Amino acid sequence: MESTGFGRLKRALFGAPIASKHAHQERLRKRVALPVFASDALSSVAYATEEIMLALGMTALGGGVALYPKTFDFAIAIAVLIAIVSISYFQTIHAYPEGGGSYTVAKSNLGPFPGEIAGASLLIDYILTVAVSVSAGVLAVISMAPATQPYMIHIGLGAVALLSIANLRGARESGALFSIPTYLFIASFITLIIVGFFVPGRPIPPEMVQAREDHTGTIGLLLMLKAFSSGCTALTGIEAISNGTTAFREPVAKNASMTLAIMAALLAVMFGGASLIAEKFHVAPMSVSEPGYMTVTSQLADAVFRTQSSGFEFMFFVIQVATAAILFMAANTAYADFPRLASMIAKDGYLPRQLASVGDRLVFQNGIILLSIVAGLLIVVFKGDTHRLVPLYAIGVFTSFTLSQFGMVVYLKRHRRTGALLISLLGGIITSVVLVVIAFSKWSAGAYIVPFAVGAMLILMTAIKRHYRYLAQELTLSSQDKLAPVESTVLLLVPRVHRGILQAIGYAKSMARDCRAVHVTLDSKNVDEIKKQWNEFGADIPLVILESPYRSLIEPIIEYIDQTIEEEPNSMITVIVPQAVPKKWYHGLLHNNAAVLLKMSLGSRRNVVITNVRYFLK
Amino acid sequence: MESTGFGRLKRALFGAPIASKHAHQERLRKRVALPVFASDALSSVAYATEEIMLALGMTALGGGVALYPKTFDFAIAIAVLIAIVSISYFQTIHAYPEGGGSYTVAKSNLGPFPGEIAGASLLIDYILTVAVSVSAGVLAVISMAPATQPYMIHIGLGAVALLSIANLRGARESGALFSIPTYLFIASFITLIIVGFFVPGRPIPPEMVQAREDHTGTIGLLLMLKAFSSGCTALTGIEAISNGTTAFREPVAKNASMTLAIMAALLAVMFGGASLIAEKFHVAPMSVSEPGYMTVTSQLADAVFRTQSSGFEFMFFVIQVATAAILFMAANTAYADFPRLASMIAKDGYLPRQLASVGDRLVFQNGIILLSIVAGLLIVVFKGDTHRLVPLYAIGVFTSFTLSQFGMVVYLKRHRRTGALLISLLGGIITSVVLVVIAFSKWSAGAYIVPFAVGAMLILMTAIKRHYRYLAQELTLSSQDKLAPVESTVLLLVPRVHRGILQAIGYAKSMARDCRAVHVTLDSKNVDEIKKQWNEFGADIPLVILESPYRSLIEPIIEYIDQTIEEEPNSMITVIVPQAVPKKWYHGLLHNNAAVLLKMSLGSRRNVVITNVRYFLK
Repeated sequence: MESTGFGRLKRALFGAPIASKHAHQERLRKRVALPVFASDALSSVAYATEEIMLALGMTALGGGVALYPKTFDFAIAIAVLIAIVSISYFQTIHAYPEGGGSYTVAKSNLGPFPGEIAGASLLIDYILTVAVSVSAGVLAVISMAPATQPYMIHIGLGAVALLSIANLRGARESGALFSIPTYLFIASFITLIIVGFFVPGRPIPPEMVQAREDHTGTIGLLLMLKAFSSGCTALTGIEAISNGTTAFREPVAKNASMTLAIMAALLAVMFGGASLIAEKFHVAPMSVSEPGYMTVTSQLADAVFRTQSSGFEFMFFVIQVATAAILFMAANTAYADFPRLASMIAKDGYLPRQLASVGDRLVFQNGIILLSIVAGLLIVVFKGDTHRLVPLYAIGVFTSFTLSQFGMVVYLKRHRRTGALLISLLGGIITSVVLVVIAFSKWSAGAYIVPFAVGAMLILMTAIKRHYRYLAQELTLSSQDKLAPVESTVLLLVPRVHRGILQAIGYAKSMARDCRAVHVTLDSKNVDEIKKQWNEFGADIPLVILESPYRSLIEPIIEYIDQTIEEEPNSMITVIVPQAVPKKWYHGLLHNNAAVLLKMSLGSRRNVVITNVRYFLK
Repeated sequence: MESTGFGRLKRALFGAPIASKHAHQERLRKRVALPVFASDALSSVAYATEEIMLALGMTALGGGVALYPKTFDFAIAIAVLIAIVSISYFQTIHAYPEGGGSYTVAKSNLGPFPGEIAGASLLIDYILTVAVSVSAGVLAVISMAPATQPYMIHIGLGAVALLSIANLRGARESGALFSIPTYLFIASFITLIIVGFFVPGRPIPPEMVQAREDHTGTIGLLLMLKAFSSGCTALTGIEAISNGTTAFREPVAKNASMTLAIMAALLAVMFGGASLIAEKFHVAPMSVSEPGYMTVTSQLADAVFRTQSSGFEFMFFVIQVATAAILFMAANTAYADFPRLASMIAKDGYLPRQLASVGDRLVFQNGIILLSIVAGLLIVVFKGDTHRLVPLYAIGVFTSFTLSQFGMVVYLKRHRRTGALLISLLGGIITSVVLVVIAFSKWSAGAYIVPFAVGAMLILMTAIKRHYRYLAQELTLSSQDKLAPVESTVLLLVPRVHRGILQAIGYAKSMARDCRAVHVTLDSKNVDEIKKQWNEFGADIPLVILESPYRSLIEPIIEYIDQTIEEEPNSMITVIVPQAVPKKWYHGLLHNNAAVLLKMSLGSRRNVVITNVRYFLK
């Protein structure tokens, strides 16, 4: 009903419908694909350094403070991990240019069950991507404007709502919308690192001096693991490109892997650089509930641009705005990938089939709305605290990393590419160790939720698959199945004799020889008039008048259908219901939709078909 | 879908569907009709006396208190009014045994516009009946159990919810359910009056003695009018029987008017008696917000059964329980009449047509749900204070009384029955004076809301009528309108070739010579398999394969429909969509409902019909 008021409202909110023939334009150029797919990975720079420092600070304040200078060491280790994982995904993109990332790789090389696990982990990760990125974006906002601190959750939910609307409008428009913040973030962040590198550092605050003198200089294994696994959050989002290759232009593999390489390099440089200057300026992470909370990134920008250099105060705000913006855009990565992945899983029968046709706006829209609702709930439940959401996030991400890389090991073994195989094997071993470390060190911090959620999804997916498998078996045709010739009886509902039903009369006559018009009378006074008019315009179709002393429209028809079934047990009975299509949608409230009521009342009556023949009102 | 889980839940809540052939059993015997239709009128006894006293107490406390002994005088005047109005309705029932009360009478004798006003007033009154009666019922509860006073609104909303469910189960069951409380109320209230008449009265409280001595003994005209109009609330509900005569058994007029006579007599006796003993026991109304609030009725029961006679304390609780119960049942009167009246108005084209077929459970249920929601809102907004709701209530009631009686004057004039005419004329004059008095004296107390609500409804009803009138004119057939022969093209959607679509294949073949099977492929790998199966089972219908590179199921079909329209501009195109009907309703979530999506996407394409052929899963 595109011409209705509702249609207009929908178009205003979600954009004009995309005709299929124009759909290829929805495929993304590299320079648009980078912001769409890389914003997730790059944006983790905004909080990964802070996560390492929070882990290092978990011991007694003095020791924690003293350990902050180790941050860069962990950053180096994680940059190496980034390189390994990226190379593995580089191989994946070339092996699977049709997209799918961890899900496809795990499924086709390790088997359906590992595939299911990868799929479930990824779907949950996309939800967490939205929650984590939006929360971190809100922290950037409150660092810049402390007065907004009490409204953290509201701002977060508002951002989720805006993202939904933007995405409901379609992928390409999102790409264009999101390019500027991503490039601004990259430029301003690299400026921060360079300027931070050259301006003089801040003196060490007295409490840090004291703490360092007190500290013995060693660092426990457990603490090391925790700090390392905390920093691994920098890797989240790295898989987005390999999942979403179908959105790239031809040649897909080349474009996607180029984008991946640029992204990984930027990620390593920005994350390492931030950790380096964090040491130089002796910043320390704060608790979200502290008054005057500032993220580590904004403390850095504050130190570099406001304390140590003058005339560049505006750069503090540029960094904050860009950080907040890229984080909100990062959430968008999930919006781009979630429906695509769900569609792939649905095609394999593990999710409802209709999700497969993601090209249907309604299906696509439902996925986006589902994603927004769950992410919004997470923000509310975790009060928008990124630090509490991150452990959940990392578990799922590293599960799919590990499955993907071991999948690539099997793939490369089959293709006898030993060199490449060793890289994927190394990556798989490292990411699985990291996974164990994260699970172990973050279990009590909420990481346990993810295995339960993945487990629940696995049960659901398996049940769905079982239903479809049962159906396929049940409905399989054998050579005994024969086509029976169908006799047709048509009942044409005639509420009144008017111009709108002329076409329905012709249609009914064309359908069957046994054709009857049926009029339900709520008021017997009108019967004679109806009969007279029918004689004139009814094309010799016999008219059946059904009395309805208790003013039901539907029951007399159902009774007459039952009677007809008894008379003609082998006939298909088609009930034709003329339906008005009004100009204004709210006029529809003034018209019966008897077809819907009839369908609901049909129950298990077989051989009955309800059909609307529409007529258009001026 | 009666065999589904949802169907079972619905049946558990709302009762088994009523087959039409059993529907006449839904008509009520007199002894069941009395509680259903008279509970409204009788229950007003529970608060009408209190309303008079509150009006008399509105002046300075001393004067107010001193005026309480006038209560009975007003009660007498109102009892006379009850008699006049009842006789007028007695005449109405005989003139219009097919029901309709004020709406029918005003419409057919005074014209459509007065009819609309009466209809709108009555619909609003039914909503207010629910709100007022439930609120008053809650006051009876808190009088008996003061600890529940803070939960007034919650109890009220709970009662509304219970009433909805009871009524969604059907009229007869309500009658049976509601008889006991009504008869218990009548019996216990008459016992109260008789016992109260014979036991010794209470001494006058000292503050009342003082007040009486101070009082000059005169009563101002304004106060008199206010007290009188407050007491008129006793008349609310008296019209219910004449509106609902269709629910009575044959002979309708005799049964309905007998019930009316019994009701009016009981009403006058109970109201007058209560006012009489209220004087004798010197009770004074309290404010709802006062701690230890008791209604006047419960103060009476307290005085008669707990203070002045011993061993009958249980009767206090019997009266309270019966009062609360009949008031909740009174709300039920509205539930019985609201959908009936809406149906009558809809038949005349002033409300959406589908409301006319009130015999359809869905339509009936929507009316009940609407009524409950609006009444619940009123209870929340007016904080469950009966005294604040009553002014609104009385305005609408007396508007419809007045219109009904003047309508009867016209009717009786036409039938040259002068004696009867004079009664109706007297009634009409008195009720219109009362209406003016209520509007005048209660305007600022909220009575102004009702004219605005009625006005809004009139605008809506007029717009609806105009739409229907326009439609009728637009769609009227003339001798130029000719039936064109219809050529038929059938497109059968084939998602997969399985046993479920066999019937659809036969059906498609029976419908037209130009018949094509259409398969949308989301994955071109499956195409060969589909083609092979179709060759075996497709009954020689040509198979069209539609590619969908962007994974839309709907768009390729719509495009193909457009192409077919171009090829065959004069053909009706029927798209047959096989649809699975699963055993468990939630399995439905796993099946496409392409027909619905197609219908939504059809827009203004003419000559296209979408049809579901269902198949049933074991």
